[in-house]
Amino acid sequence: MINSRIRKQEFTSRIVSAEEASTWIKNGMTLGLSGFTRAGDAKAVPMALVERVKQSHDAFKVNVYTGASLGSDIDTMMAEAGIIHKRLPFQADKVMRNKINTGELLFVDQHLSHTAELVRADVLPSIDIAIVEAVAINEEGWIIPATSVGNSNIFIEKAKEVIVELNLAQPLSLEGIHDIYQIGPQGERKPIPLTSPEQRIGTSGIQVAPDKIKGIVVTNLPDSPSTIVPPDGDTIRIAENLLEFLEQQVADGKLPANLAPLQSGIGSVANAVFHGFLTSDFHSLDVYSEVLQDAVFDLLDAGKIRFASGCSITLSPKKMEQVLQNFDKYKEKILLRPQEITNHPEIIRRLGLIAINTALEVDIYGNVNSTHVSGTRMMNGIGGSGDFARNSRLAIFVTKSIAKNGAISSIVPFVTHVDHTEHDVDIIVTEQGLADLRGLAPRERAILMIEKCAHPDYRPQLYDYFKEALAKGGQTPHLLQKAFSWHINYEEKGTMLL
Amino acid sequence: MINSRIRKQEFTSRIVSAEEASTWIKNGMTLGLSGFTRAGDAKAVPMALVERVKQSHDAFKVNVYTGASLGSDIDTMMAEAGIIHKRLPFQADKVMRNKINTGELLFVDQHLSHTAELVRADVLPSIDIAIVEAVAINEEGWIIPATSVGNSNIFIEKAKEVIVELNLAQPLSLEGIHDIYQIGPQGERKPIPLTSPEQRIGTSGIQVAPDKIKGIVVTNLPDSPSTIVPPDGDTIRIAENLLEFLEQQVADGKLPANLAPLQSGIGSVANAVFHGFLTSDFHSLDVYSEVLQDAVFDLLDAGKIRFASGCSITLSPKKMEQVLQNFDKYKEKILLRPQEITNHPEIIRRLGLIAINTALEVDIYGNVNSTHVSGTRMMNGIGGSGDFARNSRLAIFVTKSIAKNGAISSIVPFVTHVDHTEHDVDIIVTEQGLADLRGLAPRERAILMIEKCAHPDYRPQLYDYFKEALAKGGQTPHLLQKAFSWHINYEEKGTMLL
Repeated sequence: MINSRIRKQEFTSRIVSAEEASTWIKNGMTLGLSGFTRAGDAKAVPMALVERVKQSHDAFKVNVYTGASLGSDIDTMMAEAGIIHKRLPFQADKVMRNKINTGELLFVDQHLSHTAELVRADVLPSIDIAIVEAVAINEEGWIIPATSVGNSNIFIEKAKEVIVELNLAQPLSLEGIHDIYQIGPQGERKPIPLTSPEQRIGTSGIQVAPDKIKGIVVTNLPDSPSTIVPPDGDTIRIAENLLEFLEQQVADGKLPANLAPLQSGIGSVANAVFHGFLTSDFHSLDVYSEVLQDAVFDLLDAGKIRFASGCSITLSPKKMEQVLQNFDKYKEKILLRPQEITNHPEIIRRLGLIAINTALEVDIYGNVNSTHVSGTRMMNGIGGSGDFARNSRLAIFVTKSIAKNGAISSIVPFVTHVDHTEHDVDIIVTEQGLADLRGLAPRERAILMIEKCAHPDYRPQLYDYFKEALAKGGQTPHLLQKAFSWHINYEEKGTMLL
Repeated sequence: MINSRIRKQEFTSRIVSAEEASTWIKNGMTLGLSGFTRAGDAKAVPMALVERVKQSHDAFKVNVYTGASLGSDIDTMMAEAGIIHKRLPFQADKVMRNKINTGELLFVDQHLSHTAELVRADVLPSIDIAIVEAVAINEEGWIIPATSVGNSNIFIEKAKEVIVELNLAQPLSLEGIHDIYQIGPQGERKPIPLTSPEQRIGTSGIQVAPDKIKGIVVTNLPDSPSTIVPPDGDTIRIAENLLEFLEQQVADGKLPANLAPLQSGIGSVANAVFHGFLTSDFHSLDVYSEVLQDAVFDLLDAGKIRFASGCSITLSPKKMEQVLQNFDKYKEKILLRPQEITNHPEIIRRLGLIAINTALEVDIYGNVNSTHVSGTRMMNGIGGSGDFARNSRLAIFVTKSIAKNGAISSIVPFVTHVDHTEHDVDIIVTEQGLADLRGLAPRERAILMIEKCAHPDYRPQLYDYFKEALAKGGQTPHLLQKAFSWHINYEEKGTMLL
């Protein structure tokens, strides 16, 4: 069994326990962990590390860099143990989020395509140890990642030492779906040759200097399944509104019949939108995205998707079992790439993606808040939404028009935090309708946003704000005295209804 | 004389007066005008159009797309005559700005690399007539632009008809410095082969179907000179602060000795920063920018710059005379490209530019407002600052720490409009100092911004805000009740000092 997984014979002597590997991690170090949207994350060594530190009672802090979010409650455990000084570039963990918001740990929220550049250029504190999950180490000593690539390639390149978690719970049939492209330093690099989602431009594994691999920990720990909820009435209507628009764009000759490569953010709303394609007439679709969720595999099964390129596979429990046990079926239709490539502005702009991401709130001029509740408290992070929105052919943001049974309007006069400026936002879709903001001046946008996207309960007070601001003039009319009055009202009275 | 300028003989029969050409422009049309930062703009036909409409008293409105700002008071005249329905993607005209802010004309503020995509994909109302300045039409019938390329290539490609303004005031020696690359539609395009600023990847002129050229207007109208003011004590200190940082980065091995290709936004502060390089030890510098201002030519004269790639040349009166009369001297060291290429994320990221742009205000977390006074009133537009900041190796924003004799602080608790989010802003420089925000969490950034960049008069009240917000917690601590209190105080009492 192990021989098929560690095919460079000399490496078998480096097998150690997770406990032993964890002792190599010292106070003050910086760790680079594999893992993207709960997939392919290093599991055993971080867990052992938390246990070790808890028992030692010594002061202990490390910086932790990842691809994106981790599963297996790793972030929960690390946050509870208080061992993290700085965490980047993304997390989606409830316990960690609370610690971030109390300031117990520092979180740096980054565009997911940017982290690798900062690591490569030695701008961030350098990585002492990379801990990466693999399905195998091949004959040449290359590391074959599991269900995600994320930032593993750059972490391995730049780390002083590497610990491999060889995970027997991940099927060996995953080998062959990875495409590892090394982009090189800025100023020395060539154009990235990728011109279509199915194109292979790199190697099937991550090359690493043999001496760098300090230890191999054999594990048998499945990925954490995704936590998305099934489509509901509102998310189904959001999908319908978007599909109707896309069909009309094709009819008008503005988009090809098979659209353009699709990207979808993580989460239930975006997954529901992809599900909408199942009952549409679209076919021969391409996906060029980050995470490949349940809906992508449903669409592959239904013959709707021609090819899907991503950087991780994150599935519900049932779907995970079905997909991983029959992985050969999908093998010719999937590639996983480093997140620097899946999210690279060069590729996103060249292919002209249709990017679908989730907004927390949107203002009447089309500025989007994806991250901060009331401008202050972090939810998960910006993730790849900025990489995609800025450079796509169509930057689409989806959200339900209200939250908390109507106490919160997702369409507000002024967003309390801006992650995506009006320059980067083309289309807003809610269950109420769709606003196509392209080529519109702010005064035009405001009317569309109120009419098409806002919940009827909030339209009158949105108009009140807009009209009062309009009387004072300006390219983007605002009343600074009242801009955040809805949010203040919510904090004081529990509702944005004035 | 004309034979050297119109070298495709059959085109000489298409010479018409500006007045006649202006009659081809009908109510409701969309015009694409050449012109970028006052350089190489269509002058005679727009002027004749304004005259004609003023005398006719008929209802008349057109949409006007350009590269960036126009000179020769064209925007003033068009705005005063009330002939513009919609204007994009940039302007820098005082009269037009007022009309934008009263809502008399609609302004769509765009990233300067985005307009061409929207025109190519027929997302914006399509262009009826392109009016472009040229120094010549060559033997093959290609249009040779003058002191800017801007969006002229895509306007010519997509317009139904083209009017050429053949400007004898622009020296024919400009021919040869243009590099016109046609990128093609999204989804069909190849990698842009550019890997260094001096590389020529296109043609010396803009190809056009011969039948599309409806008329040629011969003019003799110099470009409007730039309006930048010379460096002052504060801008010299900003340059010193930045240069000291860059020198340290080189000493630390974080940047090459000749840095990375430099970009600088339009305006006096950015020009002053470039001037600072004159007395530095840096040499063999490359420029990959939009507008090439006085300082670029001073640095070329001083042998400090190896090569400068831009999309326009905008100079002070004295410098313009000196440069244009001796243009052969600069010819091997300059290329002008379409703004889609100068500002393309693919190239900016590949080369890893050092981008220096001007901020109107910055908040304590590093979000930048480049465009809107009090979040409402437009100044000029975002221009290319977003294209560069998002994709550069170093995204630097410069500003004086105070304005209006200290009544305004440029460092505020919460910017009233966000053009560049904290994710895209690396370095802030004022005359007070420099804040390197890379890899820092918001709570860390705030302290640096206050200590390094804010004016001492405003530091205590910035700390008061930050500390009070901090007590409430959050990733990005804010007090929504007080976030805009400084701006409100300024509007009510004429000062941000509380």
